[in-house]
Amino acid sequence: MTSPEKIEELLRRLWPLNRSLTGRGVQETLKILGEIMPIEIFSFPSGEQVFDWVVPKEWNVEKAYFEDCKGKRWADYSRNNLHLIGYSEPFHGQVSRKELMDHVFTLEDQPDAIPYVTSYYKKRWGFCLSYNDLRKLKGDTFNVNISTSKFNGSLLIGESFLKGRLDDEILFSSYICHPSMANNELSGPVCLVYLYYAISKIKNRKYSYRFVLAPETIGTLCYLKKRGEHLRSFLSAGYLLTCLGGGGDYGFKKSRKGDSVCDRVGEFVMCRQKGSELKEFDPIGSDERQYCSPGFNLPVGSIYKTLYGEFPEYHTSLDNLKFLKGEQLVESLTLLESLVDVFEKNAIWISTNSFGEPFLTKHKLYPDKGTVKLDEFVSTIMWVLNLCDGENDLISICQRSGCDWEVILEVVNLLSDKDLITEVIK
Amino acid sequence: MTSPEKIEELLRRLWPLNRSLTGRGVQETLKILGEIMPIEIFSFPSGEQVFDWVVPKEWNVEKAYFEDCKGKRWADYSRNNLHLIGYSEPFHGQVSRKELMDHVFTLEDQPDAIPYVTSYYKKRWGFCLSYNDLRKLKGDTFNVNISTSKFNGSLLIGESFLKGRLDDEILFSSYICHPSMANNELSGPVCLVYLYYAISKIKNRKYSYRFVLAPETIGTLCYLKKRGEHLRSFLSAGYLLTCLGGGGDYGFKKSRKGDSVCDRVGEFVMCRQKGSELKEFDPIGSDERQYCSPGFNLPVGSIYKTLYGEFPEYHTSLDNLKFLKGEQLVESLTLLESLVDVFEKNAIWISTNSFGEPFLTKHKLYPDKGTVKLDEFVSTIMWVLNLCDGENDLISICQRSGCDWEVILEVVNLLSDKDLITEVIK
Amino acid sequence: MTSPEKIEELLRRLWPLNRSLTGRGVQETLKILGEIMPIEIFSFPSGEQVFDWVVPKEWNVEKAYFEDCKGKRWADYSRNNLHLIGYSEPFHGQVSRKELMDHVFTLEDQPDAIPYVTSYYKKRWGFCLSYNDLRKLKGDTFNVNISTSKFNGSLLIGESFLKGRLDDEILFSSYICHPSMANNELSGPVCLVYLYYAISKIKNRKYSYRFVLAPETIGTLCYLKKRGEHLRSFLSAGYLLTCLGGGGDYGFKKSRKGDSVCDRVGEFVMCRQKGSELKEFDPIGSDERQYCSPGFNLPVGSIYKTLYGEFPEYHTSLDNLKFLKGEQLVESLTLLESLVDVFEKNAIWISTNSFGEPFLTKHKLYPDKGTVKLDEFVSTIMWVLNLCDGENDLISICQRSGCDWEVILEVVNLLSDKDLITEVIK
Repeated sequence: MTSPEKIEELLRRLWPLNRSLTGRGVQETLKILGEIMPIEIFSFPSGEQVFDWVVPKEWNVEKAYFEDCKGKRWADYSRNNLHLIGYSEPFHGQVSRKELMDHVFTLEDQPDAIPYVTSYYKKRWGFCLSYNDLRKLKGDTFNVNISTSKFNGSLLIGESFLKGRLDDEILFSSYICHPSMANNELSGPVCLVYLYYAISKIKNRKYSYRFVLAPETIGTLCYLKKRGEHLRSFLSAGYLLTCLGGGGDYGFKKSRKGDSVCDRVGEFVMCRQKGSELKEFDPIGSDERQYCSPGFNLPVGSIYKTLYGEFPEYHTSLDNLKFLKGEQLVESLTLLESLVDVFEKNAIWISTNSFGEPFLTKHKLYPDKGTVKLDEFVSTIMWVLNLCDGENDLISICQRSGCDWEVILEVVNLLSDKDLITEVIK
Repeated sequence: MTSPEKIEELLRRLWPLNRSLTGRGVQETLKILGEIMPIEIFSFPSGEQVFDWVVPKEWNVEKAYFEDCKGKRWADYSRNNLHLIGYSEPFHGQVSRKELMDHVFTLEDQPDAIPYVTSYYKKRWGFCLSYNDLRKLKGDTFNVNISTSKFNGSLLIGESFLKGRLDDEILFSSYICHPSMANNELSGPVCLVYLYYAISKIKNRKYSYRFVLAPETIGTLCYLKKRGEHLRSFLSAGYLLTCLGGGGDYGFKKSRKGDSVCDRVGEFVMCRQKGSELKEFDPIGSDERQYCSPGFNLPVGSIYKTLYGEFPEYHTSLDNLKFLKGEQLVESLTLLESLVDVFEKNAIWISTNSFGEPFLTKHKLYPDKGTVKLDEFVSTIMWVLNLCDGENDLISICQRSGCDWEVILEVVNLLSDKDLITEVIK
Repeated sequence: MTSPEKIEELLRRLWPLNRSLTGRGVQETLKILGEIMPIEIFSFPSGEQVFDWVVPKEWNVEKAYFEDCKGKRWADYSRNNLHLIGYSEPFHGQVSRKELMDHVFTLEDQPDAIPYVTSYYKKRWGFCLSYNDLRKLKGDTFNVNISTSKFNGSLLIGESFLKGRLDDEILFSSYICHPSMANNELSGPVCLVYLYYAISKIKNRKYSYRFVLAPETIGTLCYLKKRGEHLRSFLSAGYLLTCLGGGGDYGFKKSRKGDSVCDRVGEFVMCRQKGSELKEFDPIGSDERQYCSPGFNLPVGSIYKTLYGEFPEYHTSLDNLKFLKGEQLVESLTLLESLVDVFEKNAIWISTNSFGEPFLTKHKLYPDKGTVKLDEFVSTIMWVLNLCDGENDLISICQRSGCDWEVILEVVNLLSDKDLITEVIK
């Protein structure tokens, strides 16, 4: 397990990069994350047809700001990349106040916040400004200076893979297309790479694990063009990691299928998490919209803490490194590792003495003096022996018995050591 | 849609007729209703065996009253046909007060109401009197004057049919055997004929529609003798229309099957109706007892507003045209038309871009500026596209998404126009 | 039905016997119970392997007590057999107070109660004493005098069988291994033998009935060694009878299967019992642990009133004949007989007039005057006719209709007499 300090250091390095659907920010982000998780990069050229979509041109920014008549700079991209709308066209020239205002976005009810605005598919130039800054703006003419470029480049996505004993795969996916925002951007990829690291340390892994970092929507569609068929054959469960910091309780949004292994394990892990929320699938969200489109219908759910759209800092400059704490991500990593632990340790066992109870006293598993109220451990032994019938897996046993998952694992190890149960390999 | 005034005019014409299992009142009722809905009449002769039953003799009334010693007429059938019990034998002669009282029915706890009493299958003569009238009765001898006739005639039922593209049929059924009562008699047939009229105007109807008007129980059994086998093959859903006026909320009583198309659509339409009640099937009611007898087990439910037996005016002279308003029946017609609309418009569609979302911006279905909270219409587009997988029908989509039915229909039209979804014909 | 007085007389005779896993107490108990229910006795020799277990040596007690320095006897087995721990080793000699205390068990929070302690599988000697007695104990040395014997004898179990028309069997099982305790010992066997008597009087029984009395756990395992295969083929439902006296409401603990005939009927009977409790299966209890072990997985539930472990007198000298009343067991017998009645009378019937309702007036089953609110009996007739479709059994009809079970039975008899329904023999 990594430390809050190391996580915060990584966050600070990723913070200033101008991520978008394409461009240098994505490239640099993948490079930094690659220091923790070895990443294979796939490149899709601008103009490539991807299902109903087309890969957009690559977009980069040199500088962007405007000056008032006194030469004071406003909305300077070099100070905060949110000042420029995503995929802004270049523009140079003098404009009237009225004309400028058609290109300025602000949030009157959050006067300190710079909003986050994009215009990926409609040609536009524009600035985002806090309402407090806007009110300070004097004068009637302004000099606009936006140096951006769009050209036939490429869209990048990153993937990692850890092979296990089984070909069945667990997928973790997050997105890398928002500029300087913290909870609704960096929390996902940062947890994902540290989760990779933790899983890479599991000896004799059962499942194979796949990790994806892609710009939202079009990036994920590119990934599905490449891997969709493979995932339809091998994916047991996938989880979109998003908004894993901030306050509040954890939530799990189920896959479109609703009754897949993904949903069952996600629900099981969440139900053991205090205050957690279980949410039915809906197609209004993030990349689950693509994974769970009807043609793919993959078993992919979402794990989140404070969900997009449900915290006031969302999609503004207030979703920053003051809002997202390293220790929150450590807590989220713990949760994700416990999810992986359930996948790794869940199994079907069968009792070797299935006719009647085994003679527990002989096996030193039972108090030798009658009329002692059975403790939790002995009760768990009796539940496990009774339900290890070659059909119930450990999740079922936990749910039916109400016994503690950790105690069940301990009991299973003990009974297995004593040859009282044996694992059923399908 | 017809007006409350036209409905009330029709009610006033039907009101005075002396309907019963047989006789001139039924004949005239079918004739008047036939002005709106072309009716084919089927005639069953008295004495015909119908399953375990026999068609009764035809019954007609000339006059009926009794006189006190001062020659004053009481319980005069010409003033209110409820005064004579249904299927009363003829009787002429002087009787003592005591003897008369054995033949008089009254309601002490509703002193203004004339009760409604029948004696179809046991020979009897008798009068119904309000308790207030009864108290005014003076003298010890009375002259009874009942001129009725029973003879081998026939029992009549009426049917209409509107052919659609499919052979699958929707049935609407109501009864025409109660004399001057309003909610528990006229509300059903009047809604039924105007519903016929509305459905006849639907262009290129999907379903075929069948409409039945029959005296309760024995009439419906006659109808099932004629059409039962056919309905077992072609009936998708049937609805008994009963007690559609009065105050209160709407209710839907499910068919015996409980999970048929009839139940699913009935429940779906009712759940969108504020304050509505959903009732499980029971065999204590009206003609659903025959439709849902175990041999037929047809998918026939009941739609009602203020149900028989649950309003104090039921089966008395107080269930009259003051109690039943034209605008209540207009409201009920609106509900029935929306039920038909669900049958006509529900369908299974499949997305033509099922791998990933379609590029909605390209199709002008999505805001071109990022970070705008999606409105209800765009959310509905995303739900519809996600769930149009060739398996979910629009009812399922509505129930799973929670989107509004009318908005879904609008979205389906739009997406269909843009060739983004296509209907699945089974 | 027997009387509370006769039951209390039987309880008083069984009370003093020193029951344990083996020994004279079990032998004498079976002999006394055999006066009411003819019992076949099966004997299993000490040392016989039974699944993972071994039949223990036979244990008998001659005398047991200890004396203080003044020669006063304490913990005298001849006064209460709970004073000696079950399966105590013999021991004769002088011991210090400290040494004695290592062999004395007491209950500080129930100072009047002698606890019940056993040490079947670990060699030990020891006494049980009330805390109040313990406090009175003076002196520093004590003379211990325990004359017990263990030898290669046998373990006894008793069985009875009543053949019915079907080979399908209903099992009732209880245990006979606790010394002088009442609710958690005698209540079960005493109800079982009187239930045998009641069932033996049923003429032309449908089911076959089997009755078992065995020492808990190892005794039941011996029984399953003998009969387990047979029960897997023929057992429809089994019920463990335990703790059927004391105060409180009745409870039914389901079998491991949870949806067997045993569970369905047990639940049905209990739901008609006011205040009753329905409990899911768990493997922490009595002999259901063996019947419901995964290899056998027999449909065996438990019927109880005040359950083991849930009343303060449990496993102490306070669970005595003051706590257990004859009338409580009469009430429990009534419940058990009603369970048997459901098994005997539940059946599938089919209406002989399934197309439409039968003409009830003709069959004198319906009021001959219209507009009379139907009473419970006529409603039940209509429900039974509607649901007798050759698929629903009477339990289903009772559950779906909400009609009273006894009224349903009455209606079924009447309709059967009139040839309106006929029984379906599978």
